Amino acid sequence: MATSEASVTRIMVAVNESTIKGYPHASISSKGAFEWTLQKIVMSNTSGFKLLFLHVQVPDEDGFDDMDSIYASPEDFKSLKSRDRARGLRLLEFFVTRCHEIGVACEAWIKKGDPKEVICHEVKRIQPDLLVLGSRGLGPFQRVFVGTVSEFCVKHAECPVVTIKRRLEETPQDPVDD
Amino acid sequence: MATSEASVTRIMVAVNESTIKGYPHASISSKGAFEWTLQKIVMSNTSGFKLLFLHVQVPDEDGFDDMDSIYASPEDFKSLKSRDRARGLRLLEFFVTRCHEIGVACEAWIKKGDPKEVICHEVKRIQPDLLVLGSRGLGPFQRVFVGTVSEFCVKHAECPVVTIKRRLEETPQDPVDD
Repeated sequence: MATSEASVTRIMVAVNESTIKGYPHASISSKGAFEWTLQKIVMSNTSGFKLLFLHVQVPDEDGFDDMDSIYASPEDFKSLKSRDRARGLRLLEFFVTRCHEIGVACEAWIKKGDPKEVICHEVKRIQPDLLVLGSRGLGPFQRVFVGTVSEFCVKHAECPVVTIKRRLEETPQDPVDD
Repeated sequence: MATSEASVTRIMVAVNESTIKGYPHASISSKGAFEWTLQKIVMSNTSGFKLLFLHVQVPDEDGFDDMDSIYASPEDFKSLKSRDRARGLRLLEFFVTRCHEIGVACEAWIKKGDPKEVICHEVKRIQPDLLVLGSRGLGPFQRVFVGTVSEFCVKHAECPVVTIKRRLEETPQDPVDD
């Protein structure tokens, strides 16, 4: 055997919530990227890989989300923070549970910020062997208005990146949804 | 086991010759992409993957290469064609031999044309699960003059694409070389 048995390939998978169903549901493209990784790369070699799930939460501009800002107290802020965290953890649970079922080692964590910047920063810090990103596969027209995290990461992340587009039959009526 | 044991992941690896050493030597980035695939993806799961090596030969503008065009006869053309083919096959031999040694199934073939166009065309025809490309990892300045096959394929190939950059210590004095 020419390849080393000892080394485990660490694959980072960036995951986000569904824009249609909201938390704790994962987006179609996140789930697609995850399933692709399991079916096409990990397969039966469950001990050869470790999956690293990163969920980046985008802070609301005013920090109040759906709460009425006039009545928000410092306690409200705290509970908001912990609610965000709880939602994020429940999202990650989906991926972690599935890994446990299959017997693939994994880690999962939450960060706040601009997803594309945070993903690239975490790649630099964690140095995975591969970054897997789901993508809505939007055409050039929709891209102008939406921007894509995957395009940025392919250019800037300091590790190999693979982008998994949603299958056509999984695309919602409005392709910007996910 | 949640993943299917029966299905084999087909990875297309586009390979080219070294600009420094010439045929039959493979470029630094091709070899890097290949070794990355073996070490990080295939590992011990040699029966889980099939590698598909595509080598695209760029036709010379005048079709004469290093032969003196004044004296070239139709026979010269034929021998040139078969020499090109022989060179290409010797290049592919490196990858095929290595696969045989490790016990990974593979196929290899040669096409003529513009590499980026041909690679995307072959992806459409063959429908691999993943396309692995080596890249010189040139900065924006060098890219303007050289263009990169990988950038085009990441955008246009109809399958997931991963680009493997050369390691810094492998970069030749002139980074455009490979």
